[in-house]
Amino acid sequence: MSDRERLLAVAAGLFARQGYHGTDIADVAKAAGLGRDALHRHVESKEALLYTISRARVDHVTGQAAAALGAGHPPEDLLRTLARGLLRDVADHRAEWAVFLREHPALTGDRQADVLAAHERYADQWRQALDRGVAAGVLREAPAALVPGVVGMLSHPALWDAPADPDALADAYLDALLGGLRATRPASAP
Amino acid sequence: MSDRERLLAVAAGLFARQGYHGTDIADVAKAAGLGRDALHRHVESKEALLYTISRARVDHVTGQAAAALGAGHPPEDLLRTLARGLLRDVADHRAEWAVFLREHPALTGDRQADVLAAHERYADQWRQALDRGVAAGVLREAPAALVPGVVGMLSHPALWDAPADPDALADAYLDALLGGLRATRPASAP
Repeated sequence: MSDRERLLAVAAGLFARQGYHGTDIADVAKAAGLGRDALHRHVESKEALLYTISRARVDHVTGQAAAALGAGHPPEDLLRTLARGLLRDVADHRAEWAVFLREHPALTGDRQADVLAAHERYADQWRQALDRGVAAGVLREAPAALVPGVVGMLSHPALWDAPADPDALADAYLDALLGGLRATRPASAP
Repeated sequence: MSDRERLLAVAAGLFARQGYHGTDIADVAKAAGLGRDALHRHVESKEALLYTISRARVDHVTGQAAAALGAGHPPEDLLRTLARGLLRDVADHRAEWAVFLREHPALTGDRQADVLAAHERYADQWRQALDRGVAAGVLREAPAALVPGVVGMLSHPALWDAPADPDALADAYLDALLGGLRATRPASAP
């Protein structure tokens, strides 16, 4: 792990434990074992740390989703790949996701706009995946408002206990969403 | 609004804006226009404020859900009543819900256990409502892990922009969950 990666992990842990507003940049430097000058070579401010932590997770799942969208999966497999990818990243980087979800309102100006735009691009990849299912005749049209709910459902575990088996949980959520909870199933559905 | 209600609303607004850890009890007293002694007549500590804010929202939706469970609604109407009740309370008390979702890990000892138990009782009401649908032959059995996901889906808007029309959003989420996103529908489903 590079100094920079360690710094981000340490900062995410502190922000998750004691809040972004409750953490001083000097606490981060101390916990990372860096002097203030060394810290400032990696990151210009506490807000830049919050921005970098948030963008790193959102960009990671966006990169995963772009690869999945490019891989030619059948629509349901594509959705499952997105769901598992997101929930696995939430489980693997729970502090970072908790910090992003809780603290993004503390970002200011361009940094906040930029993180929200990145999150919107990720949601848009879910929309594309759902649209492909509709175009293929596999899925019905879903309201646009559903997408943030699905992303919210798959990322909320960051606020609670980390899931023991993120793939199984992603499948449980996705199966409910795809198949629905009503008892009567069409004879043709799997 | 009583002094106590105003105090809780002011504290929730401050905690939501500048974080629980970033807010001093003196900031709350000042913003509420109360002296430190007057504040301490209403609440013993900053942590007691966080606890009271969190319990108030969870207890409110639990009371709503108990009334709905007692009203003899058909299973789908019951689920819709729970979904709309939760999302409407999130929209009406967005700062309080944001504070609960973000800051509950800052509660200690019995206060944290108590808030988590209250949240679990609320989730259990969703389980009861789903179980009634299964018993009535209307719903299929859903994995236990689904319930926190549904509650997470319906409460995540507290972390983002407040929904303009919480009833419509609750319906969009619930319709997707009940009917599923697959295109082929059974002839008998509505």
